[in-house]
Amino acid sequence: MMALHPFDPITPAEIQLAVKILEAAFPGASLRYKKIDVNEPLKKEVVPYIEAERLGKALPAAPTRLLQVLFHRLDNGAFYKALLNAGTRSVVYTKQLPKEVQGPVDADELIEIEQLCLSHPAVQAEIAKMQLPQGVTVCNDPWIYGTDDPKETRRLFQCYMYVVTTDHPQNNHYSTPCKFSPVFDALTRELVRMDYLPGGVDTQVSETQPWKTVETIQYAHDLLTEPLRTDLKPYIVQQPEGPSFHVQGNLVSWQKWKFRVGFNTREGLVIYNTTYDGRNVFYRLSVSEMTVPYGDPRAPYHRKQAFDVGDVGFGITANQLSLGCDCLGYIKYFDGYRSDSKGNPVQLKNVICLHEQDNGLQHKHTNYRTGAATVVRNRQLVVQMICTVSNYEYIFAFIFDQAANIELEVRATGILSTVPFDNEKFGTTVPWGTNVGPGVMAPFHQHMFSFRIDPAIDGFKNTVYYEDSVPMPEDENNPYLVGYTTEQTVLRTSGSANTSVERHRVFKIRNDACINPITYKPVAYKLQTAPSQMLLAGNRSFGYKRAEFATKPIWVTKYQDDELFAAGEFTNQSKQSEGVEKWVQRNDPVENEDLVLWHTFGLTHNPRVEDFPVMPVERVSVMLKPDGFFTKNPALDVPASTQSFNRSTLHPEPAACCAPAKVKL
Amino acid sequence: MMALHPFDPITPAEIQLAVKILEAAFPGASLRYKKIDVNEPLKKEVVPYIEAERLGKALPAAPTRLLQVLFHRLDNGAFYKALLNAGTRSVVYTKQLPKEVQGPVDADELIEIEQLCLSHPAVQAEIAKMQLPQGVTVCNDPWIYGTDDPKETRRLFQCYMYVVTTDHPQNNHYSTPCKFSPVFDALTRELVRMDYLPGGVDTQVSETQPWKTVETIQYAHDLLTEPLRTDLKPYIVQQPEGPSFHVQGNLVSWQKWKFRVGFNTREGLVIYNTTYDGRNVFYRLSVSEMTVPYGDPRAPYHRKQAFDVGDVGFGITANQLSLGCDCLGYIKYFDGYRSDSKGNPVQLKNVICLHEQDNGLQHKHTNYRTGAATVVRNRQLVVQMICTVSNYEYIFAFIFDQAANIELEVRATGILSTVPFDNEKFGTTVPWGTNVGPGVMAPFHQHMFSFRIDPAIDGFKNTVYYEDSVPMPEDENNPYLVGYTTEQTVLRTSGSANTSVERHRVFKIRNDACINPITYKPVAYKLQTAPSQMLLAGNRSFGYKRAEFATKPIWVTKYQDDELFAAGEFTNQSKQSEGVEKWVQRNDPVENEDLVLWHTFGLTHNPRVEDFPVMPVERVSVMLKPDGFFTKNPALDVPASTQSFNRSTLHPEPAACCAPAKVKL
Repeated sequence: MMALHPFDPITPAEIQLAVKILEAAFPGASLRYKKIDVNEPLKKEVVPYIEAERLGKALPAAPTRLLQVLFHRLDNGAFYKALLNAGTRSVVYTKQLPKEVQGPVDADELIEIEQLCLSHPAVQAEIAKMQLPQGVTVCNDPWIYGTDDPKETRRLFQCYMYVVTTDHPQNNHYSTPCKFSPVFDALTRELVRMDYLPGGVDTQVSETQPWKTVETIQYAHDLLTEPLRTDLKPYIVQQPEGPSFHVQGNLVSWQKWKFRVGFNTREGLVIYNTTYDGRNVFYRLSVSEMTVPYGDPRAPYHRKQAFDVGDVGFGITANQLSLGCDCLGYIKYFDGYRSDSKGNPVQLKNVICLHEQDNGLQHKHTNYRTGAATVVRNRQLVVQMICTVSNYEYIFAFIFDQAANIELEVRATGILSTVPFDNEKFGTTVPWGTNVGPGVMAPFHQHMFSFRIDPAIDGFKNTVYYEDSVPMPEDENNPYLVGYTTEQTVLRTSGSANTSVERHRVFKIRNDACINPITYKPVAYKLQTAPSQMLLAGNRSFGYKRAEFATKPIWVTKYQDDELFAAGEFTNQSKQSEGVEKWVQRNDPVENEDLVLWHTFGLTHNPRVEDFPVMPVERVSVMLKPDGFFTKNPALDVPASTQSFNRSTLHPEPAACCAPAKVKL
Repeated sequence: MMALHPFDPITPAEIQLAVKILEAAFPGASLRYKKIDVNEPLKKEVVPYIEAERLGKALPAAPTRLLQVLFHRLDNGAFYKALLNAGTRSVVYTKQLPKEVQGPVDADELIEIEQLCLSHPAVQAEIAKMQLPQGVTVCNDPWIYGTDDPKETRRLFQCYMYVVTTDHPQNNHYSTPCKFSPVFDALTRELVRMDYLPGGVDTQVSETQPWKTVETIQYAHDLLTEPLRTDLKPYIVQQPEGPSFHVQGNLVSWQKWKFRVGFNTREGLVIYNTTYDGRNVFYRLSVSEMTVPYGDPRAPYHRKQAFDVGDVGFGITANQLSLGCDCLGYIKYFDGYRSDSKGNPVQLKNVICLHEQDNGLQHKHTNYRTGAATVVRNRQLVVQMICTVSNYEYIFAFIFDQAANIELEVRATGILSTVPFDNEKFGTTVPWGTNVGPGVMAPFHQHMFSFRIDPAIDGFKNTVYYEDSVPMPEDENNPYLVGYTTEQTVLRTSGSANTSVERHRVFKIRNDACINPITYKPVAYKLQTAPSQMLLAGNRSFGYKRAEFATKPIWVTKYQDDELFAAGEFTNQSKQSEGVEKWVQRNDPVENEDLVLWHTFGLTHNPRVEDFPVMPVERVSVMLKPDGFFTKNPALDVPASTQSFNRSTLHPEPAACCAPAKVKL
C-alpha cells in the first residue's frame, strides 16, 4: 500500500472514515452530507515536504491529512461545517453555520428538486393547462436562486421549465422553454411561488396557455433533418512508442516538467507543485471561481447569476470522459470521488484526461545564406476537464509545453440558457438577447473566470509587478522620437490592478532573491492576461456585490490558508462576496512574500444564432511564460522536426490533365 | 492545357512573356528586373466571372490578365513601373517613377550588397582591425535604410556586421554583432559612410578594436553544448483514407468551403473568393503590410524600421517547405514563381502548404439527466506560409473550420535582431532592450501587421459597424440594475476606429440586403480583433509618418483597384506612407458599398532572454466568425467523435504496486 501524498485527492476510504468520525460525534442524529472532501493541506506543513521531495532529501513527517465535511442535521435542518483529522481519526472542529449561509447544490439535491418540482400539484396544474400533445412532456432545470432580497434565509431553487419529447435522450428542451417557473424551498420542500415569464419585450405575464407546437432546434445527430457530412476522412494520432509522459499515482513527469494532478469536488482539476527541470515554478494553479450573470433585466431573470464553482462545483459536474471522443492519441485518465447525500463514496470515472498534442511549430530559423534550417515542433501536454453545468459546457485545459510555458485554455460550449419569447412576428427582438429559434431567445450574459495563481518562482517568496511600454520623452536622449522603454510598478501591498492594452501592460511574478546572470534582473514568469470587459452589472446590484472579484482583472493577496475561492467560501444565495475584495483590504505587504495572484478574465457573450442549438467553442487563453527565468530558450534541446520522426504523407501531384497552365510564347 | 484562372499566380511563361514585351518596348536598353508578377485583376471584371462560376452559369470573357513589372534601366538608372496585358501581349503603360521612389529589395540585390560590403576595402580595413582568430570571419545583413532625411534620394543599405565562424552553416552570428556598420549606395555601389555603433548606454562610439572572443549562443542542434532530450516519443498523424480536401489547380474545396490559393511575391499567400456552402463570404484576404520599428533611440538604430511586405515581400522570403518538418499528416504543397534580376523565372518550390489538423473539441453537450452526449471534434484546414526575413521568421496560417470560422494566425519566431553592447560588468543594462548574451543586447521593437479583409458577405456591397456592450440605464426598465445591452455604430464614410476591451467592442460586416429569418437582423460576419498597443514612435517621427496604418487598429475604405497595401505601394525609404490613412480622407460613403476593412494588430516585443538564440513562437490570432450569417450552428452536421473513427489508445492502468492508496478503517 502506497502512502497518500499530501496533494492526493480524497479516497473512498477517507469518505467512509469521515462519515464514521461524524457519526461518532453526532450520535443518533441523522445527517445529510453535502460534501466530503479533502481540506487543503496547510502550506507551512507542505512546503518542507515537497522541498525535501524536490531536493531528494529525507522526507519530514507528512502534513496533517485534513478532511472537510458540509452537512445538514435532518432533525433541525442546521447546516454544519466540520474539519476532521484523518490521521488521528478525530474532529478538529464542527461549527454550525449562520442561517443565511447556503451550501452548494449537490448531485442528489439537484435530482430531488427536479422531481419535487415535476410532481408538485401546482406544477402539474400548469402543465395541464398546456394541453400537451402525446409524446411530449415537461422537464426542468433547477437554478440556484440569485439573491434579490437581503433578508432571505430560505434555501431556494427556481425551476425553469421546458417542453421535451419523451422519445429521445438528447431532445433539446432548451429550444422550447415554458412560461412558468416555480420557486421551491429545498428544506421545507414547499412551493414558495409560481413565477410567470414574460413573452414580450416588457414584463407583462399571462396565465399559462395551451402549448403551440413549434419546431425544436435539435443538436443530436439522429434528430437532425439534414444529412451528415460524408466527406470527413479519419485523422488518427499514433504514438507507436507510447506517450512521452510518465505517471506515478498523481505525479506527472513530462519533458522536464513535474506536477501533481489534484482533484476536488469544488474546483475539479488543480495543478500542484509544478517544477521545471527541478526548479520551483508554481505551488498551485486552479480556476477558483466563475460567475455567469445574465443581462436580461426582466424579473425573474435578474436572479440568473450562477457561480459554477461555489454554487455547484466543477468536480461534481466534470464529465466522465470516453476514449476517442474527447481527445486523440494516447490518453491517461484520472478518476475522482465524491460523496453522495448518505455519505457513500461515488466514483467519478475518467474525470481528468492527460494526453500529448502537436501544436505546430515551436521555433524555426533558416539561415538565408546557406539555406540550413532548424525546425522544432511544439509538443504539448494537456491536462483536461470538461464540465457540464446544466445547459453549458466548459472545457478547461492546462497545457504545458517544452519552452516552459503553461497555458490555461478555457473553451465554452454546450447550450445557451434560453427564455421563451413571442417572436413569430417578423422583426420582434429584444435589445438584450438574440432570437435563436421560433419562440425562443437567448439573453446576453457574461462568463467571468478567476484564475488563481499561487506562484513559487524559484521559491515561495515572490513579488508581483506590472510593466508598461511607453514612449521615451522627446528630449536629447530621443532625438529621432522613436525610442520607447518600460515603466515598472510593483504591487507592494495587497490590492488590485487593471490591464491595459494601450500600454501593453504585462504582469510579472519575480523572485528578487534570484538574479538572472544574463539579464541582471530577478528571475520571473509573466502572466499573459486575457484583457476582458469586466462585470456589466451596476455596482449597487446584487449581481455586482456578490462577485466583486469580477470587477477587476488583477488581484494580489498575501497567502493565507483557506483563501482559495475568489468570491468566498459560500456563494449560493450570497448577499455579497467574501473573497479577494475583502482580503486585499488587509493591506498586507506582498513584496517578497508568499503571495497569490488572481486573474479575472471572461467572455461577454451576446449569443449568435450560430451558438444554438449547441455552441461552437469560444476559446479564451491565458499564459504563464518564463521571462528572464532561464538564460536562453529552454526548448533548444528539443530534437529537430524530421520526416523520419514525423512520417507525413505527400499529397500526389496532379495528373497531366491538371498540369500547371502554360502561356504560349 | 488548362486556361489560367484570374486568381492564378504568375507562371514561368508569363515571366518570360513580360521580358519579351519589355525588350520590344525598350529596344537596346539593358534592363534590371526587380519584380515581374501578376497585377491584381480588375474587380469589376472578376466579379461577374466568379459569380458565374459560383452559380454554375456560362462563364463570361475571362478578365484581362495583367502583369506588373518593376525595373531599372541600367544605362541611366531610371526606375520604371510597367503594366502589361498578357492576353494581347502588349504594354498598357510604362512610367518612370520619381527619383525618390525606391523599389523593394530583391533577392539578387540582397546578395550583391552583401558581397559589395564584404569586398569593400574600407570594410576589409575594419575587419583587419578586429584581428580575428583563425576560422572566424565577418558576415553582414544588409538592412533597408529607414528614412531620417527628407531630402535623401539615393538607394541606401545599412549593413550590420557580425562575427561568424566559417565551419558551420548555422553558426549564430546574431550572437556576436560587430561595432561598425557601413552604408552603401546600391546604384553607384559607393560606400556612403562608415557608421560606428555605440557600446554603452549613451551614443559614444569608438574606433574598431581587436575582437574579444565571447561565447556564441547557438541554436543549431549540433552546436549545442548540452545534450538533446531523449524522452520525446514519436507522434504520427495518419490519414489512411487520404485528406478531406480536394485540390484542382489552385482551387481548394473542403467541408463546404471553397477558395483559391493565391500567391504573389509581395504578400505571398492570398486567399481569394471564399465561399461557404455556395454563399459568398470573402473576396480577398491577405496580410497587406507589416512594419517592425525598433525602440532603441541611438543612431543609427533609429533607422531600423522594416516593412517586410513592401520593402522585401513575403512571397520572395517564403520558405521552401519540407515534408514532415513544418506540418504533420497529409500535406499538399503549392509552388510559386518569382523573377530574377535578368528576368528569368525562378521556381519557389513548396512555398505554401495545405493540411488538416485536429484542434480539440468543436462542440459538446451532455444531457445530465440521461448522460447522453454529443461530441464533435474541431477539424481544421490550414493554409500556411513561413517567411524568413533575415533574422526573423513569421508563420502565417489561414485556418478554416467546420463552424464557418476563418482564423488568421501569426506566429513570430526566428532570431532577434541584436546589437553589440558592453555588458560584461554585472548590472549593465539599457532601458530599451534586454541582454541576451555576453556582449549582445536585443532592443525593444514592435511588429505591426495589417490584415486586409475584402468582404463579400452574401454579396459585394457590405456595411461595417461596431457593437459595444453597455449597461442599461438605471431606470424603470432595469429595476435590478443587472440589465445590459449593445450600442451599434455604423461607419458610414471611410475612416478609422479604435478597439475597446472595456466595452467589449466587436466589429461586424453585414449585408443590409439579406435579413436573417431567425434573428431578423442583416446577415453578418464579425471580426474578432486582436486589440494591441499601436505604434509607440512619436507622431513627428519618420517611424510614425511612414506607417500611419499602425496608429489605428481599424480602417475602412471604399474599394478601389490598386489600393492593396496599407502603407502604400512603395515603402522602401518612404518619407511618409501613402496608404489607408490617405484613402480614408476621401470620405467615401461605405454603407452598403464595396468596402475594404483593414485591421492593424501587433506585438510589442520587449525581448525575453528566452527569445534567444531562437525564439519560441509568439502567437497572435484574429478571427472572422459568422454572426447571424446562418440560422443555427453550421457544424451540426459534422459526424460525432467516436473511438471507431479516431482510434485512440488507453494508457494502461498502473500495476498493483502503484494501486491507489488505501486508508485503513
